[in-house]
Amino acid sequence: MASDVYTLDQLSEFTRRVFLQIGCPEKDATTAAKVLLSADLRGIDSHGIARLSGYVRLWEAKRVNAEPQLKIIHETPSTAVVDGDAGLGLVVAPFAMQVAIDKARQVGTGWVSVQNSNHYGIAAWHAMMALEHDMIGISMTNASALVAPTFSVERLLGTNPICVAIPAGEEAAFVADMATTTAANGKLEILQRKKEAAPVGWIQDAVGASTTDAHALKNGGALLPLGGDREHGSHKGYALGAIVDIFSAILSGANYGPWVPPFPAYVPMPTGMPGKGIGHFFGAMRIDAFRPAEDFKQHMDNWIQRFKSAKTVEGAERVIVPGEPELELERERRESGIPLLGPVVADLKLLGERFSIPF
Amino acid sequence: MASDVYTLDQLSEFTRRVFLQIGCPEKDATTAAKVLLSADLRGIDSHGIARLSGYVRLWEAKRVNAEPQLKIIHETPSTAVVDGDAGLGLVVAPFAMQVAIDKARQVGTGWVSVQNSNHYGIAAWHAMMALEHDMIGISMTNASALVAPTFSVERLLGTNPICVAIPAGEEAAFVADMATTTAANGKLEILQRKKEAAPVGWIQDAVGASTTDAHALKNGGALLPLGGDREHGSHKGYALGAIVDIFSAILSGANYGPWVPPFPAYVPMPTGMPGKGIGHFFGAMRIDAFRPAEDFKQHMDNWIQRFKSAKTVEGAERVIVPGEPELELERERRESGIPLLGPVVADLKLLGERFSIPF
Repeated sequence: MASDVYTLDQLSEFTRRVFLQIGCPEKDATTAAKVLLSADLRGIDSHGIARLSGYVRLWEAKRVNAEPQLKIIHETPSTAVVDGDAGLGLVVAPFAMQVAIDKARQVGTGWVSVQNSNHYGIAAWHAMMALEHDMIGISMTNASALVAPTFSVERLLGTNPICVAIPAGEEAAFVADMATTTAANGKLEILQRKKEAAPVGWIQDAVGASTTDAHALKNGGALLPLGGDREHGSHKGYALGAIVDIFSAILSGANYGPWVPPFPAYVPMPTGMPGKGIGHFFGAMRIDAFRPAEDFKQHMDNWIQRFKSAKTVEGAERVIVPGEPELELERERRESGIPLLGPVVADLKLLGERFSIPF
Repeated sequence: MASDVYTLDQLSEFTRRVFLQIGCPEKDATTAAKVLLSADLRGIDSHGIARLSGYVRLWEAKRVNAEPQLKIIHETPSTAVVDGDAGLGLVVAPFAMQVAIDKARQVGTGWVSVQNSNHYGIAAWHAMMALEHDMIGISMTNASALVAPTFSVERLLGTNPICVAIPAGEEAAFVADMATTTAANGKLEILQRKKEAAPVGWIQDAVGASTTDAHALKNGGALLPLGGDREHGSHKGYALGAIVDIFSAILSGANYGPWVPPFPAYVPMPTGMPGKGIGHFFGAMRIDAFRPAEDFKQHMDNWIQRFKSAKTVEGAERVIVPGEPELELERERRESGIPLLGPVVADLKLLGERFSIPF
């Protein structure tokens, strides 16, 4: 598919100006642009600037508050609950993660559950905030229901990603950022665009039967939890998605399960919502709350080098450490620019015209 | 396969006396028996009394210290590192989890990484210690390498289980206890005994090709991470197993990756071990460090009831909440006794003769 290439600066500046236009304060617009573009840099294109007009539509629908008053509504020395005041998740999440980091500095670890937020971009950005402080970072969020638990035909969970970022020494940090489904929805969207079939084990149809129809979600189908089916451990993927849902929303007072508000503004809100907005959960653990950071990093390097140098199956170049492919792509895209598909460019041009910001 | 049925009391008393015979103090023998038998009660038969003679062989090989001096070797208000002094994991783990609970009482959450331990039974027992305190409990452990990361033919990770236990109100607690592989090794052992083939996606052979040979591990094969293959998300199962390894062992100073000591005493120890014993990681989060426990439990009940009442695929009775099957089995076995297979009974009779304890 044809794509144009843009520099990070071009896209960041455009995004920042759009956020300013909908009323975000200067600082928030800058943060939101940085978080959003980190997805494009790391190759999670489904969560980057391609979603910008979606955020604007949520603001139009009055589901995003451009000037939220972020508040800690409950806390202990190692925990907090943050009320996102319906702000952009791109702004709420870094605020909450910073609270976790500050608490970790004081008492070793910090854990923050967030209510009343919106889509927060990629999980990795927030978890990785911990790395420069020699802390392990954890980030997770619930999302609107696209996933059927094992044995269910109903969609009751989002793709509910988890990211764990762990500092190393000379090696790059270990960064595992994953949806708790077999495949993220973004991968399905790629197949839809290419008009290709999905692998068995990614989705089920409206009666819960296995299907390779990449469009099955539009006809009442569902994504499958990591594992795919019961025989291959889908009850574990379901449990992981459930844990993310409970930590993000039941600890905080956000919506959970089938009641999580959808990202597309045209999709009606669920009825009987039990909480506020969507929920996130963050953790920060200071390495030296366990052992000296230098010792830890030396052993992380040893771990990483052992895994990288493992004997591989035929045809594989080497064993990959979580986070490596994204880091490679980030280096490449910072250097050579970020490719955007035709429909994304067209959408951004329209957005630019509307706000008189040249794209 | 033929099995005899024993009461919990019979098996507990026998187990306790065996642990006393190898030199465990009274209190430790009682704890170890309780933790070990909780596996049989919950139907995780591979981790219960069937392993008792294995623990004794580790003690004979001087790899288990029956009178460990358990020590906190580093701490902050919300964290600790515990040195298990080569004790039984069945004793070390409850000690460490109690430290996590005590810290949670003080500052909201507690996180404890453990070095120099041994096999700790089922992950669930330790995590569930948190429930009666209205806390969420988390438990994980590394184990000797049986699992090949994505693209690897080498076994570099254990089945590294994670358990998360979350209190509810009128509903039973949510307890997800899972190996980070497609299938736990215990399930493979059942197929081996029955001389049945394993499903595709559970194991690979010595060159990393998919196989259904349930005995492939004996011939250089490996268990597969949750997901099975790259297309179905095995890199996520691999990442989860890696996170368990790092939290359990690199934070604490235990052995990790391919250097984790094996459970069978006849398997030689790995060379070049970078740490002490095997590692565990525990967490406790006080619910009311986030919101009032009663509110939380009411929403947990709502969550559980919604999932239980979801429309199912044809042929499925209902959607299962993690922990339900184990709880049902526990109720049944407390009432009607615990069935043991012939070879397990024979093994226990031998053990009994040796220590002059009638079985």
